[in-house]
Amino acid sequence: MPAYQLASREYQQEDTVIELKTCRIGSGQVVIIAGPCAVESEEQMLGLASTLKEMGVHILRGGAFKPRTSPYSFRGLGEEGLRILARARELTGLPVVTEITDVRNLDMVLKYADILQIGSRNMQNFDLLREVGRVHRPVLLKRGLAATIEEWLLAAEYILAEGNRNVILCERGIRTYETYTRNTLDISAIPAIKELSHLPVIADPSHGTGRRSLVAPVARAAVAAGADGLMLEVHPCPEEALSDGPQSLLPAQLEHLLAELRPMAESLGRRLSGSI
Amino acid sequence: MPAYQLASREYQQEDTVIELKTCRIGSGQVVIIAGPCAVESEEQMLGLASTLKEMGVHILRGGAFKPRTSPYSFRGLGEEGLRILARARELTGLPVVTEITDVRNLDMVLKYADILQIGSRNMQNFDLLREVGRVHRPVLLKRGLAATIEEWLLAAEYILAEGNRNVILCERGIRTYETYTRNTLDISAIPAIKELSHLPVIADPSHGTGRRSLVAPVARAAVAAGADGLMLEVHPCPEEALSDGPQSLLPAQLEHLLAELRPMAESLGRRLSGSI
Amino acid sequence: MPAYQLASREYQQEDTVIELKTCRIGSGQVVIIAGPCAVESEEQMLGLASTLKEMGVHILRGGAFKPRTSPYSFRGLGEEGLRILARARELTGLPVVTEITDVRNLDMVLKYADILQIGSRNMQNFDLLREVGRVHRPVLLKRGLAATIEEWLLAAEYILAEGNRNVILCERGIRTYETYTRNTLDISAIPAIKELSHLPVIADPSHGTGRRSLVAPVARAAVAAGADGLMLEVHPCPEEALSDGPQSLLPAQLEHLLAELRPMAESLGRRLSGSI
Amino acid sequence: MPAYQLASREYQQEDTVIELKTCRIGSGQVVIIAGPCAVESEEQMLGLASTLKEMGVHILRGGAFKPRTSPYSFRGLGEEGLRILARARELTGLPVVTEITDVRNLDMVLKYADILQIGSRNMQNFDLLREVGRVHRPVLLKRGLAATIEEWLLAAEYILAEGNRNVILCERGIRTYETYTRNTLDISAIPAIKELSHLPVIADPSHGTGRRSLVAPVARAAVAAGADGLMLEVHPCPEEALSDGPQSLLPAQLEHLLAELRPMAESLGRRLSGSI
Repeated sequence: MPAYQLASREYQQEDTVIELKTCRIGSGQVVIIAGPCAVESEEQMLGLASTLKEMGVHILRGGAFKPRTSPYSFRGLGEEGLRILARARELTGLPVVTEITDVRNLDMVLKYADILQIGSRNMQNFDLLREVGRVHRPVLLKRGLAATIEEWLLAAEYILAEGNRNVILCERGIRTYETYTRNTLDISAIPAIKELSHLPVIADPSHGTGRRSLVAPVARAAVAAGADGLMLEVHPCPEEALSDGPQSLLPAQLEHLLAELRPMAESLGRRLSGSI
Repeated sequence: MPAYQLASREYQQEDTVIELKTCRIGSGQVVIIAGPCAVESEEQMLGLASTLKEMGVHILRGGAFKPRTSPYSFRGLGEEGLRILARARELTGLPVVTEITDVRNLDMVLKYADILQIGSRNMQNFDLLREVGRVHRPVLLKRGLAATIEEWLLAAEYILAEGNRNVILCERGIRTYETYTRNTLDISAIPAIKELSHLPVIADPSHGTGRRSLVAPVARAAVAAGADGLMLEVHPCPEEALSDGPQSLLPAQLEHLLAELRPMAESLGRRLSGSI
Repeated sequence: MPAYQLASREYQQEDTVIELKTCRIGSGQVVIIAGPCAVESEEQMLGLASTLKEMGVHILRGGAFKPRTSPYSFRGLGEEGLRILARARELTGLPVVTEITDVRNLDMVLKYADILQIGSRNMQNFDLLREVGRVHRPVLLKRGLAATIEEWLLAAEYILAEGNRNVILCERGIRTYETYTRNTLDISAIPAIKELSHLPVIADPSHGTGRRSLVAPVARAAVAAGADGLMLEVHPCPEEALSDGPQSLLPAQLEHLLAELRPMAESLGRRLSGSI
Repeated sequence: MPAYQLASREYQQEDTVIELKTCRIGSGQVVIIAGPCAVESEEQMLGLASTLKEMGVHILRGGAFKPRTSPYSFRGLGEEGLRILARARELTGLPVVTEITDVRNLDMVLKYADILQIGSRNMQNFDLLREVGRVHRPVLLKRGLAATIEEWLLAAEYILAEGNRNVILCERGIRTYETYTRNTLDISAIPAIKELSHLPVIADPSHGTGRRSLVAPVARAAVAAGADGLMLEVHPCPEEALSDGPQSLLPAQLEHLLAELRPMAESLGRRLSGSI
């Protein structure tokens, strides 16, 4: 038994499947999570949400509390952002995922979010991990910027050990010496997680590359490597985005990517949509 | 003006000096912070504190809330650990530094600690940075495991921007591919901080190397590179330590190191003790 | 124009295609290069070569001069290994690729090899690059262990600048802090090369992962990301291999992988076999 | 016995000392190697050599064959550079160290150089290591850009195993994610080598930092950590240097550094000059 026990394949052989209204993460389905880096306004979010719904996206993403490297950057709309997300959910029927950074906001975020995201920078914020472990809402746990696969699974273990078994792992790139990309997406981590753990694992090629032109090929690669889904930043007007513009796809680019993914997924015995 | 403004040399030319009862961090003095990784018992802590005081150590360290990679490891004694630290301070007159990991514990930790430590894993826990920025207690901010020097200074900026100007930076090694050492202490970060910022910077060769045999040479190196002080793990019986035993010095080894450092510091126009 | 000129898309818009008897590298075809890490005996090589030929492999690989970390490890059979490779070519009609490490062996290796491989450790052995630039044999240039994409393209530029325009790049994983895998295959480097350069780029998931169980998913990922081909280590009896056993596929595992790749490639508008 | 046998402390307890006319590397003396990155002209080299001799420098450095990332950069003067170096030696009596990159140049370089330098990029050019192992000239072996300490010692083992026991190791910084410095000098590698091996180890703070302002503090640190010497780039007019200008000290800066090092070395029981 490895140091992560509850998260290990030894402890549980069958894959954990997270059931949501629009998809089943970990079931073999290729689940698409998409939306802007940050919720910027109601108009933007609702318009984009409708577009994404029509394309077949399963889950909406959008940040209300943004951890930013500089204290002088836009930090998100806070609870107002959460309210907008909730309206987007009402409008589209799509579940929403949003980041939580502060234990003191847990009750507030629980009022609005279907999935709680723990960002890279908080992967070892153990107090936060324990708190989200005490509720039963699914948690999307991003890999830390310089976390080993073992440390990542031990971070998941913090959540599982408190009782919450609904953890989704998300590979989002690690820090290396290469500067052409924002991070280096560790593609081998996807099958590695699949052999070490029963938890679902998705990929975030937007943060993983930091460059719009690389998002689609790396998204295809992640699915081919066995990822249970993709988390993609989409913005109607990336050059005006308040954060992460250079890595955001245009809606039409996402549509094109989904059209590429559907036959590829089928060739691998998987599907984006429908009951699996 | 760089992205970190208040932390920059451009903003403030003269060195920031943090005044404590036993030392002045940033004044040119070589300040020694020592103690166990974690407070394990009153007996251990008080005995060790007296020994360290006699050796000329300026500040006691000891963790009460330990961030641990695995949820199944010893996490510290919590408030009882803080009380023991406070008794060690009463006994010796030495100020104490201890780590805070959870914003909800701030009032509690403020009752006991002279310096608040923000650990590597929380260097970008921005909510915590803002909270410690709102009090006036000195903050020792460790560099994140994979943080650039710029990100580290921006983390300091979060604290400074809230009004707390008493920030001490601590280089504790970064993650690289080398496995012989636990981390790779970035020695050049010390003079780099000195040219970019007015804030004091110390080094932690215990975490920086993870090996007892390398602590003394790397400690000497840090002082030679211009560090304002050293943070050293010391344990009376390292093989029984509940955490970080392999990198803890024995008290006699610390005494030997201090004896080496005194003439070396003087040769560089600096001193360990006395008013500077 | 970037620092690498002849290698850049700006200099040449259309893709470079390397024509071989059995395949066209860079044409859109998914080219499969397979064989043992090192040529170990004639019997092993010829048997394996026939098997690989039947599976539809396009090019045989096998090392005769092996750069090994320790001077006490098996270094390959030298010219005898090259002769065995040549016999495998005669038997199967498949072109062969083999590594050259020493400029003094160039004439010898040219007698036997259809493609000259420059390994990771020699990516910046500039004297060797210049020499292989002076002949017209295709060169497979592996990315250095810690080379940036720009440095890799500049290494290619050394070869191109001497007159040899037949360069194939090979992503084989970079060194990071992660220890679960031998290297971290940088999947985004594949589309990055495609946008920066006209040269073909293949992937080596055997060295990229170092673990047999991860080779197939990472191979699929590389093709999905746009790689022009794959280089795969195969051994009839990996536990007895003189080098790289843990990352070598069994022949049956390669056959299974190729069966997965064919429909996937087609779903992406590409093919493994036939004229493209 | 570790994988590197002849290089290990287990094999040889007493320190290897390399005897040169002006110094004894590995004896406890702090040996200073200085000179320009590349030999650019006779006038420059002879003038600088005299200056360095007067300052107490022990060994002259200067590159005649420069491995450059781009094929379009200045690659050194070749044999003419070696001849100039030899004239500088005649003029000053100082031994010279210069890099060899191509096995075919060994006889030529042996005519001129007192110490053969193997650069970072060639640390695993095993054919070159074997050739310099077959002569008895001292070899200065730089650590590879991303080499572990074990791989570095195994590279030394290649030389030792061929019979040449005169190997000097040189820590010159490793590649990390930090971009403020050109490389990250791994200060802990110095005492690590001292415990693992009997070979002398020096530091190169010029390449280790890539910034003139950081060279002196990191040089002091290396000596404090136990380095047997320093290799420093010095140029009379760095802004006109054909390579590595930004990391080259002015002669006056080297003089100032040496004045700092002398009392510091003495405080540690060591000396720069005289018989030790």
